[in-house]
Amino acid sequence: MADRLIGACIFGQSGGPTSVINASAYGVIRAALDAPEITNVYAASHGILGVLSDTLYDLDKEDAHELELLMNTPSSEFGSSRYKIKDKKDLCRIHEVFEKHNVRYFFYNGGNDSMDTCHKISDYMVSVGYECRVMGVPKTIDNDLCGTDHCPGFGSAAKYIATAVAEVFKDAHVYDTGTITIIEIMGRNAGWLAGASALSGLIGLPPDLIYLPEVPFDYDAFLQDVASTYKQQNYCIVAVSEGIRYSDRTFVSDAKVSASDGFGHAQLGGTAARLSAAVKMQTGAKVRPIELSLLQRCAAHIASQTDIDEAVLAGKVAVESALAGESGKMVAFTRETLGGAYSCNTSLQPLSICANEEKKIPREWITEAGTNVTQEFIDYALPLIQGENKRLVENGLPRFARLKKIIV
Amino acid sequence: MADRLIGACIFGQSGGPTSVINASAYGVIRAALDAPEITNVYAASHGILGVLSDTLYDLDKEDAHELELLMNTPSSEFGSSRYKIKDKKDLCRIHEVFEKHNVRYFFYNGGNDSMDTCHKISDYMVSVGYECRVMGVPKTIDNDLCGTDHCPGFGSAAKYIATAVAEVFKDAHVYDTGTITIIEIMGRNAGWLAGASALSGLIGLPPDLIYLPEVPFDYDAFLQDVASTYKQQNYCIVAVSEGIRYSDRTFVSDAKVSASDGFGHAQLGGTAARLSAAVKMQTGAKVRPIELSLLQRCAAHIASQTDIDEAVLAGKVAVESALAGESGKMVAFTRETLGGAYSCNTSLQPLSICANEEKKIPREWITEAGTNVTQEFIDYALPLIQGENKRLVENGLPRFARLKKIIV
Repeated sequence: MADRLIGACIFGQSGGPTSVINASAYGVIRAALDAPEITNVYAASHGILGVLSDTLYDLDKEDAHELELLMNTPSSEFGSSRYKIKDKKDLCRIHEVFEKHNVRYFFYNGGNDSMDTCHKISDYMVSVGYECRVMGVPKTIDNDLCGTDHCPGFGSAAKYIATAVAEVFKDAHVYDTGTITIIEIMGRNAGWLAGASALSGLIGLPPDLIYLPEVPFDYDAFLQDVASTYKQQNYCIVAVSEGIRYSDRTFVSDAKVSASDGFGHAQLGGTAARLSAAVKMQTGAKVRPIELSLLQRCAAHIASQTDIDEAVLAGKVAVESALAGESGKMVAFTRETLGGAYSCNTSLQPLSICANEEKKIPREWITEAGTNVTQEFIDYALPLIQGENKRLVENGLPRFARLKKIIV
Repeated sequence: MADRLIGACIFGQSGGPTSVINASAYGVIRAALDAPEITNVYAASHGILGVLSDTLYDLDKEDAHELELLMNTPSSEFGSSRYKIKDKKDLCRIHEVFEKHNVRYFFYNGGNDSMDTCHKISDYMVSVGYECRVMGVPKTIDNDLCGTDHCPGFGSAAKYIATAVAEVFKDAHVYDTGTITIIEIMGRNAGWLAGASALSGLIGLPPDLIYLPEVPFDYDAFLQDVASTYKQQNYCIVAVSEGIRYSDRTFVSDAKVSASDGFGHAQLGGTAARLSAAVKMQTGAKVRPIELSLLQRCAAHIASQTDIDEAVLAGKVAVESALAGESGKMVAFTRETLGGAYSCNTSLQPLSICANEEKKIPREWITEAGTNVTQEFIDYALPLIQGENKRLVENGLPRFARLKKIIV
């Protein structure tokens, strides 16, 4: 057992929001509020930007029930950021703010880029001899973090996607006139989310074709596959990842590379619309592009309870591990499948291996033709979408957390 | 009490699908199966087209539990059509098929155009002296049917829209960099659905501006309103109806009028994308267009239980009324508000007043500036989105009805 370290903690949210990032927030906050070692519990406004600008919310002043409602509140309640630490000046400033508030625990909830931020802060505090335990809490609908079996946020997005695809399938098959529907799903470099569309096959309503960033996109083969499916069935449902690329690595989407986020990632979108126009020209069929857009990452009303529970767990374990002396690690999930039953345990991974690298779908979980996922993928993803969430409803609408957000 | 009329019945679904059209199907089918006067219960494949082609499903052969699951199955389970009866030849053929199967009851579930079809069939059967009771069952997410307080399908779409807008609001406010979000909502000539986005204001997450087809669209005023809201708040959420038009009646969307449905209605879409490009140019802000697309009419997973119950009721009352001797009528809803509590009764309306006319939002339920709805609108819509549906889940996904669909 490590020495008891007494001091305040800061929690921050970073990167794209998910349906359950606030569930992890709740896991961290509840455990931190309950820990005698932690003197004050703060949340940074807009992640690391709130640390840099010393804009912190005092969570000790919040109502316990409202904090609980974070478990069913989508998006990043305390604001997010895509700011990437630029230089030593930033790190120096973070150290200054930590010292000012006697911050001895820092919990950062995000994806690869955020784990990189976390890693830099952890290393810097060690280098200047400031005792602070830094823990990463994983989050990303993209499910592309290395070192963990899966990520909080993915299961809920996957559940939404599979449900939406099933519902759209029902809708698209309603007329006798035939249609082609192209559904665009998020995922910059990894196709986990687009692959999750295949789960709708379990209720007999699968997409006919799935295009993933892991497989170089062949435009001619695509047109041929869609046209022949349509000819055969009078219908064709296509799921495409926003991140599909040609073999020369250029995006199929009409990406405006000039409009990029802070990390230099191109803002994608419009893949379905583009492909629809081409398919319409080729087949003469009625073609409808559907972009699931933000809905897939914020539809908390259909979040997976498994995902919510695991997101809370990840936050709680981050705090418990830090209290036990751990630092510079990310909470990761390991999967146990005993007698066919899924269970999820946690482990700790060095931040270095989680930062910046992206985990893709193994090629062997994608069919040879590259237009669908295999049973291995289904077996992997299915346990993560289980459980209907126990959300509170008010006036027929979701009752989200209403926090006071009192600035320190 | 009218004479007991013994014979078969045909049920058909028409027009755009909704989350609860199958709930009305269940209401009709269950009541018809239970009625001793009704010898056989058939569903027409693809609405009136299935009557013309004599393609009927035998519902007596279906499992009772699977039929019950229709209450939570979106889209038109028996197929829909937008076919408009062309001439006497069509009516003659319908008469022939009715005679062949001794059809004495015809129930047609749809919107204005479908009520027109129903009306024509009813008149024709009277004119040729073929005894057949014809009843219309209302359905449309657009809520634009005359003669009824509201339509089955609207409440569920409104609940989905208000929930989605609230969730997108949370997501869109996450970064400190500011964004403008333009959400496109269905509704060709009436703004009931776009207006329903205002319900999200009840949980503090309203759109800032709402543009409805009822108010001529002023492009300059729009750009100015969005820009000034953005400037003030650093955020702006805009809800636009797909059907907004300039004062010269041309659609704002890049409508391809050549691609129209069977009734000569232009296929709309792309309004949000178009306006986004303009707003981006004007403000320089990050602007995200979101089209709720088909999801708003097929998201049965978040259907309003009030809407489901009323949809079942409409179907049941259609059968009961026909058994009691009524014909040439549509089941309509009347609203009772006793001591503040909402309740819904039914009445019968002549098909003639329901056919082809569209009910719009009263101008006095829209604010003077024309960019929001008033409290009257909220009071009207709120009871319709109440109640979380009791849907069956299998493998974390919706368990829809699985019918045998045995052709007669």
